[in-house]
Amino acid sequence: MPPTNKIVTIGSHSALQILKGAKDEGFGTIVVCVKGTEEPYRSFKVADTIISINSYNDFEKIQDQLVKEKAILIPHASFIAYMGFERVEHLKIPYFGNKKILRYEADRNLQRVWLKNSGINVPHIFKDYRDIDRSAIIKFHGAKGGLGYFIAKNPHDFKKKMKGYQKDQRYVIQEYIVGVPVYAHYFYSPLTDELEILSFDKRYESNVDSLGRISARDQLALANVDPSYVIIGNMPLVVRESLLPKLFEIGRNVVEESKKFASPGLFGPFSLEMIIRPDMEIVVFEISARIVAGTNPYVFGSPYSWLRYNEPMSTGRRIAREIKRALQTKQTHKILY
Amino acid sequence: MPPTNKIVTIGSHSALQILKGAKDEGFGTIVVCVKGTEEPYRSFKVADTIISINSYNDFEKIQDQLVKEKAILIPHASFIAYMGFERVEHLKIPYFGNKKILRYEADRNLQRVWLKNSGINVPHIFKDYRDIDRSAIIKFHGAKGGLGYFIAKNPHDFKKKMKGYQKDQRYVIQEYIVGVPVYAHYFYSPLTDELEILSFDKRYESNVDSLGRISARDQLALANVDPSYVIIGNMPLVVRESLLPKLFEIGRNVVEESKKFASPGLFGPFSLEMIIRPDMEIVVFEISARIVAGTNPYVFGSPYSWLRYNEPMSTGRRIAREIKRALQTKQTHKILY
Amino acid sequence: MPPTNKIVTIGSHSALQILKGAKDEGFGTIVVCVKGTEEPYRSFKVADTIISINSYNDFEKIQDQLVKEKAILIPHASFIAYMGFERVEHLKIPYFGNKKILRYEADRNLQRVWLKNSGINVPHIFKDYRDIDRSAIIKFHGAKGGLGYFIAKNPHDFKKKMKGYQKDQRYVIQEYIVGVPVYAHYFYSPLTDELEILSFDKRYESNVDSLGRISARDQLALANVDPSYVIIGNMPLVVRESLLPKLFEIGRNVVEESKKFASPGLFGPFSLEMIIRPDMEIVVFEISARIVAGTNPYVFGSPYSWLRYNEPMSTGRRIAREIKRALQTKQTHKILY
Repeated sequence: MPPTNKIVTIGSHSALQILKGAKDEGFGTIVVCVKGTEEPYRSFKVADTIISINSYNDFEKIQDQLVKEKAILIPHASFIAYMGFERVEHLKIPYFGNKKILRYEADRNLQRVWLKNSGINVPHIFKDYRDIDRSAIIKFHGAKGGLGYFIAKNPHDFKKKMKGYQKDQRYVIQEYIVGVPVYAHYFYSPLTDELEILSFDKRYESNVDSLGRISARDQLALANVDPSYVIIGNMPLVVRESLLPKLFEIGRNVVEESKKFASPGLFGPFSLEMIIRPDMEIVVFEISARIVAGTNPYVFGSPYSWLRYNEPMSTGRRIAREIKRALQTKQTHKILY
Repeated sequence: MPPTNKIVTIGSHSALQILKGAKDEGFGTIVVCVKGTEEPYRSFKVADTIISINSYNDFEKIQDQLVKEKAILIPHASFIAYMGFERVEHLKIPYFGNKKILRYEADRNLQRVWLKNSGINVPHIFKDYRDIDRSAIIKFHGAKGGLGYFIAKNPHDFKKKMKGYQKDQRYVIQEYIVGVPVYAHYFYSPLTDELEILSFDKRYESNVDSLGRISARDQLALANVDPSYVIIGNMPLVVRESLLPKLFEIGRNVVEESKKFASPGLFGPFSLEMIIRPDMEIVVFEISARIVAGTNPYVFGSPYSWLRYNEPMSTGRRIAREIKRALQTKQTHKILY
Repeated sequence: MPPTNKIVTIGSHSALQILKGAKDEGFGTIVVCVKGTEEPYRSFKVADTIISINSYNDFEKIQDQLVKEKAILIPHASFIAYMGFERVEHLKIPYFGNKKILRYEADRNLQRVWLKNSGINVPHIFKDYRDIDRSAIIKFHGAKGGLGYFIAKNPHDFKKKMKGYQKDQRYVIQEYIVGVPVYAHYFYSPLTDELEILSFDKRYESNVDSLGRISARDQLALANVDPSYVIIGNMPLVVRESLLPKLFEIGRNVVEESKKFASPGLFGPFSLEMIIRPDMEIVVFEISARIVAGTNPYVFGSPYSWLRYNEPMSTGRRIAREIKRALQTKQTHKILY
């Protein structure tokens, strides 16, 4: 018997996958689109209903309609970024996820404490530019989508490069770790207390992923190019199998730690964003406490989800299955907020 | 009832996928191979019949045989490159695609007009080297497979580097856009007037995709390395979901524009080759008006084709399905030329 | 009727895929884990039995138990690296593969002779540093997992950089080929004398695959970064279709050549690790005479294995199928040693 609830999400980020996964689990689907962005959801045939709004400001206006449809909201990063976490906290539509986590995720400092208390390596933060004693990356606060970074090797270099930026901008000076970026996609079920690894990806970022295609000679000849990390896409990746035990361990630690400060803790999909160094040390620089777009290559399942499920299991579908299971076993209070 | 027609293509480029897709739709398959290149088509079991010829010059000699077999020809880039578009225009075997498009695709200037009239950003062209006022890439005409490029930052740099090349070679001086390359794979059906996005890829090019693996210090120490863009392979990619509405729009514009100058316009598979900049502006530098090899990672479907089809749908299979549908509905005059 | 034998491997490298493939072919599965590394095999549900040992030193202690279970051992690189090939040669448990190949694979010089006698291009080796007349990469013997390399352009550069290393370390000076790395995954069946190409990958190595993400200017500003090639993961890749005939040919040559010196020769999965240059010349720098971790992206089949099999066929499953076929046709003496 298919569920009578519907799944709703916002047309962006990972909505295609979320909606497809919901349909595969038997849910009706609704996508809310800002006017002009409907075509993908029409063409890929994943939404039973498309609701157009003028801007994210109007989301609350359609909330009653969604509640009446018995819709359950799946949040993603674009939704939270455009709404702001305070507004999300006040929504009354059933929401998949622990809203208490939102403010921890939104604050770099709280994230850092969370990771450190989980026993995980994080990059060093320099409190003062004069302390820079190894290569560092300077990240401006509120930098949207990967713009506004530079790399400095020492205090002098910092001062010189800082001249190009406004004085009143807030920033953080973080140790620059040389190693490859890896994005690990987890799912934690509060219904079964199981932690799963669903997949991995490597981001495809403009311009940093094109710099290497310009020879050093030509780069130096060209006008100076500052690195930017604007995500344009994602590429599938598997990781060295001997790293998996450690990756399960740190995923579990992040979940357990979160139970202490935001009961019942982090659940559903989340991602750890890390650098893996040549000595195979893992340094985590960010937690995403919801579905990440890096799972989009795996609409039809990942090399990892095929192992466990033996059927096409995307992160979007895994969410829908969790909700279905909670509905069937009357445990929705554990996953909807 | 399976179709009584057969699908034929040339053994190279994307033939494996085309033949597999044809078989999946119930067609018999024929591959025409230059002697010595048959093994992949044998080993992968995608061709019912392998016809060996000594060289592409002999293609017309087997045409009668193919016509008798009721074969429909699926062109790809290698076929057109080796045959030359004038010869292709004069073939009498049923041909999937609009032959009028061929000469627009073959001419960089006509392509450029096509793209501009479609309202799409294209890289600036410098008519004279003395006008170079930002980084530029110099592409020689008739450059085969990605060799014969260099990057110059100003007129002086251009003159210096030009010394290594023959004076009588024709070239184009194009603005060098810093951003990541993305290849978008479309399919337009003249039977339903629907435009689909089937997949995306990132090319894997020798040597540019290895330059980044050499440290700047070592690159400068080594003998000078000119960039080359010889395609060696392709890697799967998904793009940021919020870019999709724009990508649907520009794909549609390219199709509509083509109807004006080469009625009934571009149809079937095509690709737009683009750079996406850090500000998320899309700059298109080339149209491929047929199947591209970038669809080869998706023999069993792509993250996008799984959304719409819920069965393994490669571009090769999509072609075969279009032909089958046209045969079943007596509309082959709309797709075969 | 499912086979009564079981498949056993060591919990690392490509064990998830091997065990999943074995289950798909109907075998019972056993994984042997060093204590503390069991979680992936539990979570991904691929092992019927998990046996924990304190270290690889204890492997022989559980051998009798494995033999009693009618287990067949599938070796992989981690198993051979940790056990040492001499110990593997003396194991009594049925072993999938030709043990005579092990010492050829372990010795760079023997590998080189093997490749050259197969008519395959290999990188030039400089016997004396004073002979360095083009860019060269210096690889230290016993370098574990990709550490301990540098690039030198001439004898002077070599001497200068060599100062950072211990004098008594053995090394090889190899021509540095500029081109893209490609890893080709083969399977040769001694039951049918067929050579298959199952897939390709591109490694994801720390730190070389992150160097390109640092601008040349910033790289030079940072402290010197030596390249390291520690494998962190693998990414899916397809190759230009016109390269396949040559790739089938060199795979076949490697198999045929091995029959001369290690009868009945190399069989089962193997990999050729190559650079493909801009002129499309293939230079092979290593043979892996067993399953490689580069096949891990293809748990649910690769674009190539879907062509031939039309069902999900990983390299792990291909191994299990070969064993099943040998059991069914009483030819296990051809594949178990």
